[in-house]
Amino acid sequence: MLTSVRNPEVKDVVKLRNRRHRDRERRFVVEGTRELSCAAGSDVALATLYYCEELLAEGGRSLMERIAAAGTDCQATSRAVFEKMSYRHTPDGMLGVAPMPDLGLERLPARDDALWLVAAGIEKPGNLGAMLRTADAAGVAGMLIADAATDVFNPNVVRASLGTLFSVPIAAASGNDVRHWLHGRGIRAVTGRPDAVVEYTEADLRGAVAIVVGSEHQGLDAAWSELGAQAVRIPMLGRADSINAAMAATVLLFEARRQRP
Amino acid sequence: MLTSVRNPEVKDVVKLRNRRHRDRERRFVVEGTRELSCAAGSDVALATLYYCEELLAEGGRSLMERIAAAGTDCQATSRAVFEKMSYRHTPDGMLGVAPMPDLGLERLPARDDALWLVAAGIEKPGNLGAMLRTADAAGVAGMLIADAATDVFNPNVVRASLGTLFSVPIAAASGNDVRHWLHGRGIRAVTGRPDAVVEYTEADLRGAVAIVVGSEHQGLDAAWSELGAQAVRIPMLGRADSINAAMAATVLLFEARRQRP
Repeated sequence: MLTSVRNPEVKDVVKLRNRRHRDRERRFVVEGTRELSCAAGSDVALATLYYCEELLAEGGRSLMERIAAAGTDCQATSRAVFEKMSYRHTPDGMLGVAPMPDLGLERLPARDDALWLVAAGIEKPGNLGAMLRTADAAGVAGMLIADAATDVFNPNVVRASLGTLFSVPIAAASGNDVRHWLHGRGIRAVTGRPDAVVEYTEADLRGAVAIVVGSEHQGLDAAWSELGAQAVRIPMLGRADSINAAMAATVLLFEARRQRP
Repeated sequence: MLTSVRNPEVKDVVKLRNRRHRDRERRFVVEGTRELSCAAGSDVALATLYYCEELLAEGGRSLMERIAAAGTDCQATSRAVFEKMSYRHTPDGMLGVAPMPDLGLERLPARDDALWLVAAGIEKPGNLGAMLRTADAAGVAGMLIADAATDVFNPNVVRASLGTLFSVPIAAASGNDVRHWLHGRGIRAVTGRPDAVVEYTEADLRGAVAIVVGSEHQGLDAAWSELGAQAVRIPMLGRADSINAAMAATVLLFEARRQRP
C-alpha cells in the first residue's frame, strides 16, 4: 500500500495536473467512479488504478475488479495519499492514470452525411467539457478541436464531460489542418455569427455538416469565412448580444439533428 | 479614500459573499464594469460604488460618472482594499453594493401567450447563471426560480449571467407557489424527461408555455407531473443518459422559439 505522500509515484500523479507535465509524459489522470467506468468501456487502456478502500463509493469495488481483470495494475493507497493525489473536494476513492491517445485527424471515423462539431480556440475547460456532452447527446460522428487553448486531458474537461470524453471520437489539430480535413471530405462548415443574414432554422443543416463554434472572447478566425463556411444567425431576443460557446453548439447541433430524417 | 482593510465597511462587503449575511442584510454585490453597466440600465438602485483608480478598465470612468449622476455614492479605495473586497482574480476596479430587489411572483409582467422558464431546485450558481443567459437570448417573459438551492444574488450567478440577471424579469418562490401561479395564469408546464413518449420537436410549444427544468441530481419533484406538466423527450443519441440543466433549457427554449410565429 502507498502510504507516503513523498513517494515519487504520488508526486508524479499530482504533477499531471500541469499541462506541460502531461504533454511531456503523454499520460493523464481520470478520477472518479463514473469517469473511470466510461474509460473502462472505451479504447483508453488505463495503466494504473489507485484506490483507497476507506473512500470507495458504491459500485467502486466491482468496477475495480473489472479494471483489474482487464490487466490494469491496481494500487491501494492510504487516505492521506489519495487525498493528496485527488483534485476533488469529496473524492470517491478511485483515480486512474492512462496513456494519452494520439489525437490525429486520421483517427476519426469515415462517415457519410454525418454531423460533426468543431470547437475552435476554446479557452475554458468547463466549456470544452460541456461541448463534449452536447456533442454526445446530439450524436455527432466526432468532435474536432482546432487551435486548442486548453487540452482535453485537463482534469476539469474530464470532469465536466462526465465521461463523454471517452465516447465521442475526438481529434485535435491546427485550424488549417481541420479546414483541409473538412474540405477533403466534402463536409460543409456552418458557423453562428451575430451579423449573419440567414437564421439558423432557415439554413439546410442536413448532410455532411460541421458546426463550427469559436471561443467566447475571440470569436472565429477569419480563415473560416474565407474558406466559405456558411454563417447563420442565432436570434438574440434579449439584452445580451451573445450566448456562450457551449450553448451555441447546443442550439445548432440540436437544430441540425431535428432537420435530419 | 478607503485605505484600511480593517474598515468595517470593507469587512461588510467581504461578508456579502456569504448567503446568510446577504439574506439578513438584503444587499448584494455586483462586481465588474460589464455587470455594473447592466445593473445601471435596470431598476436595481446601486447604494454604493467602490472603485480603485489604479485598476479601472476602459470605459470604467465614464460608467462611474453615469452611476454617480444617478445619485449613487461613489467611494474611492486603495488597491489593497479593492483586492480585499473583490472576488475576482483580475478585478477591473469597480464593485457596487445594491439592495436586493424583492423577488415575489407579483413582480412578473402580465403577458399573454408568452414563453417562461422555470428553474426548479438548481444547485450550481454557474448553471443558474447560464440559464439566465439562455432565457435572455430566447426572449422569455420571465424566469421563475422554484425551491432555489442557490440564490440568484450569489456572486457566481451575477458573474455567470453576464449581466442578464438585470434584464430578465425574475421571481423566486416555493415549487407549490410557482405551480399555483402558472395554473392561475393558464400557462402550460412542459418538462424534459428521459422516459417521455413525445419528442420535444413533436410537442406544441406555442402559446403560454413554461419550460420547467429540474436539478441535475434530483430531477423534478413528482408534484410537477401530478399537476399535469407535459413531459417531452430530448433524444440522447450518445452514451450519456442526460445533458445538463442549462443545456436542456437551451434546447427546449429555442425549439419553443422556433415554433412561434
